[in-house]
Amino acid sequence: MDPIEDPIEALDFSKANGLVTAIAIDDATDEVLMVAFMNPEAFRLTLSRGEVVYWSRSRNKLWHKGEESGNTQKVKSLYIDCDGDVVVVRVEQRGGAACHTGRRSCFFRKLQDDGTWKDVGVQVFDPKEVYGK
Amino acid sequence: MDPIEDPIEALDFSKANGLVTAIAIDDATDEVLMVAFMNPEAFRLTLSRGEVVYWSRSRNKLWHKGEESGNTQKVKSLYIDCDGDVVVVRVEQRGGAACHTGRRSCFFRKLQDDGTWKDVGVQVFDPKEVYGK
Repeated sequence: MDPIEDPIEALDFSKANGLVTAIAIDDATDEVLMVAFMNPEAFRLTLSRGEVVYWSRSRNKLWHKGEESGNTQKVKSLYIDCDGDVVVVRVEQRGGAACHTGRRSCFFRKLQDDGTWKDVGVQVFDPKEVYGK
Repeated sequence: MDPIEDPIEALDFSKANGLVTAIAIDDATDEVLMVAFMNPEAFRLTLSRGEVVYWSRSRNKLWHKGEESGNTQKVKSLYIDCDGDVVVVRVEQRGGAACHTGRRSCFFRKLQDDGTWKDVGVQVFDPKEVYGK
C-alpha cells in the first residue's frame, strides 16, 4: 500500500467542480439510501465527526445530514472507487429514513414492465411533521 | 401514480450537463459494483437491450459496458431517486467483475482506522489478459 498519510489524498475532486459523489448505503440492509456530494471539508468533517456531512449543491453550503430531521447517518465504514471520484459510506441510518419525503430510501421508484414508475418505498415519517412544511 | 408514458420523463438530466449518475448494484449480493453516467440515449439503450449502456465522459461516447471484456451487465431492475438525477440499476454481472482492474467491484479500497486505504477487493480476472494492455 502506498504510504498515504491523509486519506483525502486518494480522492479526485477535479471531475465534478471540486466535489466527489457520495453514496450512502444502509449498513444493516445493504440498501442504497441516497446519493449526494462532498467537497474536501465535508469529507474531513465526515471522518472527524463520525457522522455524514455532505455539500449541498442547491443550498451551496455544508449539510450535516439529519441536522433538521434528526435522522443523522453514523459512519460504519467508508470505501472509494478505482478512480477516486466516488465515496461509498456505509451508515447506520438514525430514525430509519434517509429521504426528505420520509421514505427509508430516496430510491423508492421502481421501473415496471409497462414503462411506469411504481412507488415501492417504505414510509417512515411524515415530512410535514418533521420539517413543519 | 402519474400517467407517465415514457419512463425517461421522470429523469432530470439538467444537473450534470445532460447526464444522470448511474449506480450498478450486484443483484445477487447487493454490492455496489460501479458508478458511471448515462445520457438519454444510454438510458434508452439500457432499457431496450436489457444490458447496461453508459455514457463515457472520458471517451465522450456511448459505452456498452463489457463490450471489450465480455463482462456485460444484465438489467434485473431499475430505480430512480426522489429528484430523478440518479439511477440505480440492479444487475447480473457477467464474468463476475465490474472493475477495469479485474476486481469484482470498483469500491475495493476501504478506509482503515489509521487513515490508510486497504485493498479489500476480490480479484476476478487479470486485466492484462482481458484488455491485452
